[in-house]
Parts: sequence; C-alpha cells; structure tokens
Amino acid sequence: MHISQRIEKFEASPIRRLRPYADHAIAQGRKVYHLNIGQPDIKTPPALIEAVKNIDFTVLEYGPSDGLTEYRKALPQYYARHGISLQPEDIMVTTGGSEAILFTFMTLCDPGDEIIIPEPFYTNFGGFARMAGVTLVPVTAQLEDDFQLPSIDAFARKITSRTKAVMICNPGNPTGHVYTREDMEALAALVVEHDLFFIADEVYREFVYDGLEHTSILSFPEIADRAVMVDSISKRYSACGARIGFMVSRNHEILAAALKLGQSRLCPPHIEQIAAMAAISTPQEYTDEVLAEYQKRRDTVSRALSEIPGVVFSHPHGAFYIVARLPVDSAEDFAIYLLNEFDLDGETVMFAPASGFYATRGLGLDEIRIAYVLNVEDLTRAMEILKAGLAAYTAR
Amino acid sequence: MHISQRIEKFEASPIRRLRPYADHAIAQGRKVYHLNIGQPDIKTPPALIEAVKNIDFTVLEYGPSDGLTEYRKALPQYYARHGISLQPEDIMVTTGGSEAILFTFMTLCDPGDEIIIPEPFYTNFGGFARMAGVTLVPVTAQLEDDFQLPSIDAFARKITSRTKAVMICNPGNPTGHVYTREDMEALAALVVEHDLFFIADEVYREFVYDGLEHTSILSFPEIADRAVMVDSISKRYSACGARIGFMVSRNHEILAAALKLGQSRLCPPHIEQIAAMAAISTPQEYTDEVLAEYQKRRDTVSRALSEIPGVVFSHPHGAFYIVARLPVDSAEDFAIYLLNEFDLDGETVMFAPASGFYATRGLGLDEIRIAYVLNVEDLTRAMEILKAGLAAYTAR
Repeated sequence: MHISQRIEKFEASPIRRLRPYADHAIAQGRKVYHLNIGQPDIKTPPALIEAVKNIDFTVLEYGPSDGLTEYRKALPQYYARHGISLQPEDIMVTTGGSEAILFTFMTLCDPGDEIIIPEPFYTNFGGFARMAGVTLVPVTAQLEDDFQLPSIDAFARKITSRTKAVMICNPGNPTGHVYTREDMEALAALVVEHDLFFIADEVYREFVYDGLEHTSILSFPEIADRAVMVDSISKRYSACGARIGFMVSRNHEILAAALKLGQSRLCPPHIEQIAAMAAISTPQEYTDEVLAEYQKRRDTVSRALSEIPGVVFSHPHGAFYIVARLPVDSAEDFAIYLLNEFDLDGETVMFAPASGFYATRGLGLDEIRIAYVLNVEDLTRAMEILKAGLAAYTAR
Repeated sequence: MHISQRIEKFEASPIRRLRPYADHAIAQGRKVYHLNIGQPDIKTPPALIEAVKNIDFTVLEYGPSDGLTEYRKALPQYYARHGISLQPEDIMVTTGGSEAILFTFMTLCDPGDEIIIPEPFYTNFGGFARMAGVTLVPVTAQLEDDFQLPSIDAFARKITSRTKAVMICNPGNPTGHVYTREDMEALAALVVEHDLFFIADEVYREFVYDGLEHTSILSFPEIADRAVMVDSISKRYSACGARIGFMVSRNHEILAAALKLGQSRLCPPHIEQIAAMAAISTPQEYTDEVLAEYQKRRDTVSRALSEIPGVVFSHPHGAFYIVARLPVDSAEDFAIYLLNEFDLDGETVMFAPASGFYATRGLGLDEIRIAYVLNVEDLTRAMEILKAGLAAYTAR
C-alpha cells in the first residue's frame, strides 16, 4: 500500500514550503514581512465586496460548467477596454487561473507531450504539467538580460515530435519581464511554422510600468486558431481568494473539448462569479492607482537592492516580482536562516527561493524572488532587514 | 495541430449533454421538469446565506491550501454528530467533492493503476479517472437486486498487480443503495487482505431513509491508514454552487501528498468556506425536514413507476436517485424524444440516460436515472408525463 510515484516526485511548492519556518518565527514573537507570495495588500474593489453582501438566493445552485451565462456575456466589456475583442463563446470561466492551466494542458497535450517555455517560470506550471503528464521543456532566460525572450532559435532547437505548444507568462512571474510586440510576432511565426499551439498566461496584464504596452496573444489574427490565453481576476482585483479564472480561445474546438473537463467538476464557484461580475465595472482610476502604487514599490525595491553589496537583480517592467541574485551559495538556506535565526529589532523577512522557478536543475540556487506586495514603508523596512540579514549571514 | 487524444476519448457528461435539447424545448415554450441532475430545490440553510451577506473583508486573500484553519477546526463538530471522530488534521478542504476525487485518484494511483468499483457509478468518477490516467474496473451490481453489493468474490476476481484501491459511493449515486455494516466489514477485510486503499464517496450521508443507518468508511479502526473519504457540502446544505468539499483520511501521509496538489491550485474558494463554516450550526430540524421530504418524494416516484407498464426499478433507501429500466431499446433516444418531440399540455420531462453510469459497454442502455429533486406535486406531474411519453413513444 503505497501512494503514487507521481505524487512522491511532486515537489512541495517552493513558494509555500517555507511556511512552517515562518510560522515558527511568528510563534516566537518575531514580525515577518511576507515578500514570498503574490498576495497583494491592495484593497479589493468595493463593487466586488458589495456584490457579495447584496447577494440574494434561496438555493445555491450549480451553474453552467463554462460559467454563469450572464457573467460570460459581460466579460467582453472588460477585454474590450484592453483592446481585445471577444465573444462570450470565446471564454470559459474556470476555478482560478490554476484550473485554466490544468485544463489547457490536458486539452492540448497527451501524456509525454512537451511544451516549450522560457525559464524561470511560475512554479505551479510545473505542478499542473506533472498532473497532466506533460513535460515542460525550458529555454533559459538570463537575469543579466532582465530575462528578455531567449532567441527564437533557442526555442526552435527544443522542438521535437512530441512538442505540442509554446507557452509564455506575460508579464512574467517571477521575472516581471514584459514581452514586446516584436517578441510576440516572432513567437507567433514560430508556432505557425512548426504547427504548434501557443499558450499565454496574462494574469498580470494590468501590471505594466514605464509607459510600456501589454501585447496580448489574442491580438494576432494569424494564430487565432492556435492561441489559448489563461487569465484570472486574482491580481487585477486583489481577489486571489475568489478562485475565478478563464480559459480564452477563439478556437472553439479547444473550448468544447475543455468543457468536458469542466463538466466533470460541474461548475466554478457561484458566489464568487457574482462578485467577479460586479468587478467588471471597476473604474479605471482603481487600476491607475494600483499601477502607480506598484511602480513606486518596484522603484523602492530596485533602489534598495542596488545598495546591497554583491546583489545583482533584473529590472522588471511588469507584474510585481523582482528576481535577485545574492552572494550566497543557497538562497533557500539563506531564506530559512532569516526565518529561523535572524531578526532586526524583532523583525525578519520571507522570500521565495528562485530555484523552484527553474526546470533546469542547478539554476537559480543563489536567486530569490521578491514579491513587492507591501506598502513602500514596509518594503523599505523589509529591504533593510534583507541587507542586514545578508551581512550577518555572509559574515558567519 | 490537434487537441489531445486524451480529451477526444473523454465523453461529454451524460447528465449534461442533453442540455441543448432541453434548451431547445424551453425555447419552444415548453416547460421541462428537470429530473436529470442532482440539483435539489431544497432551500439552502439561512445561516449559510446570512454568512455571505454579513461577510467582511477588505482584501479577498489566498487562504491556506488545505482550507481555512478556522473552518477545519470547526468541521469535527459536524462529523461528531454523525459518530465520526476526526481531528482538523484529518481533513483537507477541496474545491467541491469533485476535486477531492481527482486529488484522491492522483495521490493514490499512478497512470495505468486500477480501482475496482461497483457499477453503475457516478459518471464523473470516470472523468476524473481519465484525468488521472487511472482505470476504473467495474463489478456489476444488478437493478433487480436493488443494486446491492456484488459478492466479495466478484471484487477479488478483479484484483490485479495494478489494483490500488476499492471504491464505493455510499449511499450510491445513481443507485440510491445504502451499504450495510456487514457489507462494509467485508470490503474492509478485502482491502486489508490484498493491501489496497479503500475510497468512499459519502456525500449523501444525510440521505438515508426507512430508519436505516449510514456506515462510514471511517468507522473501522482496522483500515484507518487505508481509508479515504470524499465529502461535500453540496447535497446536505443544498449548496451545489459553493464548490466546497473534503478529502478526509487518518493517514496523514496521504493528506500531506495531496496537499502538494492543493498547493498547485493555491486554495479553495474563500467566501464559500466562510459560508460553509456557518452552515455547520444548521439545526438538526433542517436535516430532518429535508429527509422527510425526500422520503416522500422517493415514495411518490416509486409509486408512480410501479404503475407504468413494463417499467422495472430499484428500491433505493438513500441518496435521491432511482434507476428505472424502461421498455425501450435506447433510453437516450427516448430522453431526446421527450425533449424534442413530446409534450403533455405543453410540458415535458428530462432524465439522465443511465448507460453513462456503467463502465461496461452495452449495460444500462434501457435504463434512466431519475433524480427526485422536485417537490411532490411537480414529481407527480413529471411521472405522469413520463408515463404518457412512454406510451406515445412505444406506440409509434
């Protein structure tokens, strides 16, 4: 009687597995600044909260497997504001972006199939790939180059008879990199040439700084039939706990196939869909304010990092993460040290070791991902603690 | 560029795939009595609804991957009322019973492994098994015997080197059968003898009629380490849209492994957990009234079925389903006929063809599952329509 080898090989989330150390630090009475997880402190739009409070039902029924019809009809308004023209039929509501990723992998790929993806990449892509029996084939992007898109040749060299898709996260988690229109055109040409699907996780669409523009995978008509976009309300409405996401494609064969998976799990959460529907009317000022705030935060972290000796870091234009290379052998050991042994006036800080974001073993061992999801004051303090902790750690 | 063979082989839900025909009937102005899906009309407990309306948050944050700590701490109160002694550590909150099934399959089984299960069984077990690459090996139960447990020998004969578990649904969907303590003891002895896991879906725990008692898989200490119970609030609180379920086991190695899957999808829906927590205090009178109501409904359907010539049906003591064999070649064709061509004074009725509940091809083709989820008056009318529709269909 043994549990599956599949699950034994499954690594615990590198973002979440340090939690016991953090719990320990907190139990000891130390304050922990959490820069390890993409949980923003930004307030959820009032319209979403009001929709929950004003909800009215007598029976909390199953909804349609592809999402509440009314919600799907309303969603194109949101996308239109981002220059993406969609019909309700192009959208399947999922239980978080998480489920959209799993369903996309299972719909496009058979066990043993491969998806080529720049690394470092969002660690849970790896989890869902393992659940679907899919191999993620990494093309390594470089911290020193701010994780810009590796050469198209580097992608092309990874293509085998089992390759089914190319996948990107744009803006990138954990890189914060924003791909240019030229990058996207080059990838589009590649997938057409090699007859592949193209998957883009665009959950950080709103989080693009420095006047740059986000280029959606859905803005290239020549790949309309091979493009699948994964989306979520978690980040844009600071509503991570809602678990409402989307699988979006103009290829309805793909969505019809994915709906079979959707029917198995019956429907996405009902109340949270009502709430998410109300959030569509969130005024632009909300997003503008959030964006300005994050840009300040990014600047705060960048400035602080540049003042820590021996630290090299990428300069992100999107999302809310920075990857930094530290002058240590093991960023994970250092992260544990910060939680277990270090404090600055009773306070410490928690990061995600970045090695878990690389599929290639041995990469990123000395890197961390900083999620700048706290206010500027807290971030400033957290970076002071990082600096002091690093000095103490390297002086041991 | 082809979608996966995995998904092409995936059959659309037999419960949901007739929906376009029903939509058509409704568009034509005909009234459709829905006895095809386990969506009760029973009111959700007011405490659950009030908890939603009174919810208070400023940021809708990620919760723990195994469920809100407060909720997990409260859940043992519920189980204690059913004679099941649990600790919070024995419970992982999942996104519906659906996810609990998927996680259980993936945690216990590798692709190619087998689970032995009495058929007919809940059709979505098949979907999740396909997602996990697991083969469900059926042992056929007989309608004429009210779908009682097949002989233990019949189970034993199906055991191979790939068998990892025996699975039951108790009370059964679609059979309504309630297994006796002796049945459960015999299955427990079997899994011990052959060193297998034992999975029980107990989401219909509350729905046991005629003074019978439900026997939980968790009430046998000798299989504490090999028992996994799948549960959900959907049926007991008429809260199908909430998507809150549980994977329950005293074997914490299993739950720790499943938590890796849970971490990939981050967390179950937050608001619905708050609502579900409030439902724990639902008074016993609510369940008693619901139970009395369903027993009346079952009696209504049984009586009506016994008056239709040529119909044979099982006599269920639990859940809210009855499987009936009709004097037709194809129950699916008949179900489509009812939606497409038939009406009695502008009204018709929708059932789930039962063949989708059998893993063995060719079984159940002339059977339907009736979900008695409407009030007695509507059920009475729906059965009149069935009777008239059947007469018209067979007279053609």
